[in-house]
This record gives sequence, C-alpha cells and structure tokens, in this order.
Amino acid sequence: MDSTRLEAFSDGVMAVAITLLALDLAVAGPHGSGSLLHQLDGKWPAFAGYFVSFFTIGVIWVNHHNLFKNIIAIDRALLFANLVLMAFVVLIPFVTSTLAKYLTFGNADAHLAALLYTCVLIGMGLSFGFIFVWSLRHNLVRAQLTGRAALNATIRFTIGNLAYVVAIVVSFFSAPVTLLISGITAAYYIAEQILRPVGTERSEPD
Amino acid sequence: MDSTRLEAFSDGVMAVAITLLALDLAVAGPHGSGSLLHQLDGKWPAFAGYFVSFFTIGVIWVNHHNLFKNIIAIDRALLFANLVLMAFVVLIPFVTSTLAKYLTFGNADAHLAALLYTCVLIGMGLSFGFIFVWSLRHNLVRAQLTGRAALNATIRFTIGNLAYVVAIVVSFFSAPVTLLISGITAAYYIAEQILRPVGTERSEPD
Amino acid sequence: MDSTRLEAFSDGVMAVAITLLALDLAVAGPHGSGSLLHQLDGKWPAFAGYFVSFFTIGVIWVNHHNLFKNIIAIDRALLFANLVLMAFVVLIPFVTSTLAKYLTFGNADAHLAALLYTCVLIGMGLSFGFIFVWSLRHNLVRAQLTGRAALNATIRFTIGNLAYVVAIVVSFFSAPVTLLISGITAAYYIAEQILRPVGTERSEPD
Amino acid sequence: MDSTRLEAFSDGVMAVAITLLALDLAVAGPHGSGSLLHQLDGKWPAFAGYFVSFFTIGVIWVNHHNLFKNIIAIDRALLFANLVLMAFVVLIPFVTSTLAKYLTFGNADAHLAALLYTCVLIGMGLSFGFIFVWSLRHNLVRAQLTGRAALNATIRFTIGNLAYVVAIVVSFFSAPVTLLISGITAAYYIAEQILRPVGTERSEPD
Repeated sequence: MDSTRLEAFSDGVMAVAITLLALDLAVAGPHGSGSLLHQLDGKWPAFAGYFVSFFTIGVIWVNHHNLFKNIIAIDRALLFANLVLMAFVVLIPFVTSTLAKYLTFGNADAHLAALLYTCVLIGMGLSFGFIFVWSLRHNLVRAQLTGRAALNATIRFTIGNLAYVVAIVVSFFSAPVTLLISGITAAYYIAEQILRPVGTERSEPD
Repeated sequence: MDSTRLEAFSDGVMAVAITLLALDLAVAGPHGSGSLLHQLDGKWPAFAGYFVSFFTIGVIWVNHHNLFKNIIAIDRALLFANLVLMAFVVLIPFVTSTLAKYLTFGNADAHLAALLYTCVLIGMGLSFGFIFVWSLRHNLVRAQLTGRAALNATIRFTIGNLAYVVAIVVSFFSAPVTLLISGITAAYYIAEQILRPVGTERSEPD
Repeated sequence: MDSTRLEAFSDGVMAVAITLLALDLAVAGPHGSGSLLHQLDGKWPAFAGYFVSFFTIGVIWVNHHNLFKNIIAIDRALLFANLVLMAFVVLIPFVTSTLAKYLTFGNADAHLAALLYTCVLIGMGLSFGFIFVWSLRHNLVRAQLTGRAALNATIRFTIGNLAYVVAIVVSFFSAPVTLLISGITAAYYIAEQILRPVGTERSEPD
Repeated sequence: MDSTRLEAFSDGVMAVAITLLALDLAVAGPHGSGSLLHQLDGKWPAFAGYFVSFFTIGVIWVNHHNLFKNIIAIDRALLFANLVLMAFVVLIPFVTSTLAKYLTFGNADAHLAALLYTCVLIGMGLSFGFIFVWSLRHNLVRAQLTGRAALNATIRFTIGNLAYVVAIVVSFFSAPVTLLISGITAAYYIAEQILRPVGTERSEPD
C-alpha cells in the first residue's frame, strides 16, 4: 500500500484542525462586554494560542510531509500509528481553546490547562517518533539514514521532545511560559528547516 | 469511472467528521461551573465518546481504503451506496455528542441515546456490507475472494455486525456498556488488522 | 489548465458543507426541554432537512463529477462559474437550518424560509446549466453530445429546474411540501442515475 | 519537492475557510427577535460580508492555483511562506464575522473592525507577493516572466495592494465603504481574469 491516500486523509484532518483554531477568536459583538478594542485586548490569550498552535500544526504538516515522502510502504502498524498521531492533532484546537481561557489566571486551573496542552503536544511528538523508528526498523523507507544524518535526526527529535518535557515541568508554575516554550519550539523547527544547508533534508521527524 | 474522486470526497467527509468530534470536548471556561478539574471530570463521557468514535471512524477509513483499492470500477449503485455510507459517518459526531450528554443518567433517555448511537454504527456496517457484496457480485473487483479468504471476510463482517446487534440489545439496559462494546469492536478490528499475517489482506469490509 | 485541482477544491467544499449539515441536529441535552424522545420528536424538521439536503449535495457531487470528467480544459469563465456554484453549495447548510427552524409554523416566516431554500437550489441548478452549456459551446468537452443524448440531457436538466420552479411557487403556500418536492427531485436524479441503461452516461448536468 | 501535497493541504484549508463563512449567516429562529424577514434584514452586513469574503477567498484560490502551477520546486522558505498565507486565509472568517457585527455602527468599533479586515487582506496580499518574488529570484519557476508579462504582473499586484492600502485609510472613516472597496478589488481580479486575452496567463500573483 502506498501513502497517497493516507496523506490525503491526514492533509484533510490537519486542514480542518488548523482552520477550526480560528473559531476561538470570535468576539461577542456590539451587545457584548465593552468596546471591540476592549474585547480584543481581553482575548490576547486566544490570539497567542492561535498563533502558537497554527504554526505548531504547520510544523506537524511539514514534518508529516517530509516523513512520509521517504516511506515507500505503509504497513498496518503505521496506518494506526498515523491515526493516533491524528487523534492528537484533532485535540489541539480543544487544548488551545482551554489554555486560552485560563492562561492569565495563574492558579491551579491555568496550570492544569497548560499541562493538558503540553501532554497533547508530547503525545503528538511521541507518535511521530514511533512512526519514524518503526519505518526505519521495518525497512519501509526509501533511503536509510546514515551516520551524521541519523545523528542530526536524533538531535532534532530529542530537542523537540526535551522542550515539551521542560514545558510539562513549567506548566506546574506558569501557563504563559508553557505557551511561550511551545511557540519557541515551533519557531526552532521552522528556523532549522529554513536555514539547514540544501541537500541535507531527509525523512526525519524534524 | 475509477474510484479516485470518490475516495477524495469520502476522505474529505471522514476527515471533517473525525475532527468535528473534538468540538464536543469544549469546557465552559473560568466563569463556568467550578474548577477546570471538576469540569473535565464531569466531561468524561465526552472524552470516552471522542475516543471510541475517533477510532471507529479511523477503522471505517482504513476499511474504506482497503475496500476501494480492490474495486476497479464504480457503477452508479456503488456511487450512491457510498453516499449512504457517508450519511451514516456524518451522523457519528451527532450521536456521539448525544450519547455523551446522557451516558451517565441510567434512564430511558440514556438508553435511547445508546440505541441511536448503535443504529448509526449498524447502518454504517450494513452500507459497507452492501458495497462489499455488490462489488463482488457485479465483478467490479480486481481479485475475487476465494475459499479461505472469503470465509475470513465473512467471519470478520459477521463479528462486527453481531457486536453491534449485541450493542443494540444492551442499549436498552446500559448506555456505558453499549459504548464499551462499540469501543471493543473498534479495538478488535484494529488488533485484527495489525496482527493478521502479512499477505492475507484483501478487499474485504474488515 | 486541467480540472484536477478544481475538482479537489470543489470536493473539499462539498465534503465540508455536507458534514456541517449534521451540526443542526444537536439536542439541548438533559438540562434542556424535556425528555430526549420529546426533543428528537420536536426536531423532525431538522432530520427531514438533513436527509433531503444531504442527498441533494450528494447528487450535486455526482453530477459535478460526471460533468467535469468530460471537460478537458477549464477556461477562466468555468473557473469562476464553478466558484458561483460552490457559493450556492456553501449556502445549503444555512438555508436548510433556517427552513428546519420554521418548517412547521405555516406562516409567512415558513414560506420565506422555503423560498430561500428553493432559491439557493435553483441558483445551484442554473450554475450547473451555465457550466454545461458554456463547456459545449466553447469546445471544452471530450465528446460532444449528439442527437438523443443531447435531448436526454436537456430533458433531465429541464425536469430538475422545472421541479425547483414548482417548488418556488409552492413555497408561498407550504414549507413542508416545498421540502418534499426538493427531496423527490433528489430521489428522481438518484433513481434516474441508477436505472439508466449502461453506456448512456455522458457529461450532462444530470 | 513538488507542489502536489502543498496544494492539497492549501485546497483543504481554503475549502474549510470558505465554507465556515456561511456559519455566520445563521438566524436565531422563531423564538428569536421578530419575524424571519426582520432578522434577515438585520443581517444584511453578514450577507454582504459573506459575499465579499467568499469571492475574495475564491480569487485567492484561483491565484494560488495559477502561481503554484508554474512553480516547479518548493524550497523550505516557500513551504513556510505558504503557511503564513494560510494563516491569513484562516483569519478571514473571523475578521468577516467581526466586521459584519459592527459594520453599521459608524463608531470607533466599526472602524477597528474594518481595519482588522483590511490588515488580514493586506497580509494575505503581501504573502502572495513574497511567494511570487521569491520563486522568481530563486529560479523555482517553469517559465520566467519577460518584458510585458512582468510589467503586467507588477501592475496587477500593485493595483490589488494599493486598493487594500486605500481600504486601510478608508477604514478610519467608514466600515461599509471599506467592505465595498474589498468587494470591488475581488471583482476587478475576477473581471481581469475572465476578460484577459487568451494566451497571456502566467504564474503571476494576479
């Protein structure tokens, strides 16, 4: 089985999830609480959440693309591992919305919302890691990673998941800093992708 | 007519339906009823429903993929049978949300919600069965099923629909057990797919 | 320009629109108005609307597929005519929801809701007709329609739009009958497609 | 890397965003405020917003299609520039809904809503411009633009963005006129596309 339809389905899920993120920005309108400027000002956590989660899903899409273009055969384990990955992606609008609602409260609720957000991101990262390792171990890839490329891939994978582990610890102290770390992680992957020398791209979960 | 565009449309419908499932998880927020932990705790039926229905639609997608990759020609009956299948898929977020709302009430409403949920799943299963049998009878498949493969396909098809018939009976007594049976059925199909020996996959509605 | 990406975009729009139809079925829940059976009973117009509009969009998708598979070149007029067609498709969930809310009231509001519903369907039908006629006149089709096929296509096209014209007149008297006529029109196209002798299909807006 | 999957993902995002536009049209129903005619009459800003934004996204889709069909290689900068473009597209339903809510108030809120709307459109226009210029400068295109074609493309690009700059200035005075200018800009691009002599189309952000 080739990956065409798996990619089409995953593209659909990611496209819907990334678009639903913006639903959370809706303002109450003229008969709501105060002026539009006041309402927008009070919604800055929703805008920050939209921004971070949009580019997080964006990075997931780019990585999904890079990963599967090097996979030449999809076995059944990969099929369901991809479903698990999608289950985490679909949860991102929910945890983003929850985090935005509690972001500024600085209490146990805010920390729980931040923990939820980070758990979904780490679940997503581990699903990617599973797909990556499984496809290598079962010879489902076009080109095996060698030496330096394998090291680079491992470094990138470790940095991302380490950042999310740090975010989990931080979530017990500060929800805004947790969101900030998630944003920096997405920015790191974007910068790393854009700045990496040409000819070094491979099918890594980066 | 080949199946490319039918699959693209069906992928779109399934991707949207599977993503809409998560809309039901939204919490009321800080000005809602109690702490976030309390709200999430009270929403466990929604999470259970999300979990079961996500993987049910996931299994439907995998089966749809397996079924149509062996179908070489789509006649008009298949075109509309697929629409009927999609009509049931589109109802899954609605019946999941309804079941989650009433799951813990243990009254006639809970039983009705469980019955609705199961009816949609059995309607989905029968649509799959129709597409399967029709494509075999009208020689629309790449490879006919023979002997043991046909038997296996029939067994798998019967197990799934028998489980849903059991779920219908159970729905009159317990909504949570109905959801549990649906979850076990999805898990059975996932396990069966992953563990089945390589080389035995065919275009069966499994 | 070939039609691949136009079809992909249109498939996406139709898949989202057909799935959003089910959002209107949501019940208020246990703290709403009365038992679940009572709530579902009160929502029969929403279910009837879902049923008719789902298969109407389904028929639109089948016809869109049939129409564009015979079109070999998309000029800019077709590109925007297809956008107009999609603008009407996207309005179907809105007019269905509005019609369902007023269906049983039997007053001026119900008639206006039925008129809105029918106008969107007739706008959709005329967009199809424009694409059909334009593609024939500008030699954008794979095979020109000849004699009997052209007559059949014209008959089918006329029946559908005549039915919608009748529905417009009826909308001033009865909203439920308007919905019924729309349902019968969709059923006619489905039956006509399934029962038509093999080998007679062509790129007609049927 | 070719552009197939980038286009599939972008088509998905644009299809969802264009369909979500219609969610804003929903009326309160029979137990809302007054007759259906009265409610629809009060919602004309929502209909105007739907109309303008639907064809704006439609023009974006046509331009995206034209632009990427001439791009033969996607580097990482284009991948993320396209994500930025999609981030603006996803915001269109939000700013349309906000603008519609305040359109008729004629106060600072209305002007802010109009400013928001225009900023998203100009952000979208600049993202297109970046993709266009980057793809030319880095030789990622099938055919370089020469002489008159390059001039035409620059003229079209300048007209669109100039119109949005005018709309920004106007937004401080009149929200309805801002929406009108956005509508005229979309209409200009549609007319220009349909009326342009055959054989002059190229991969320009037009």
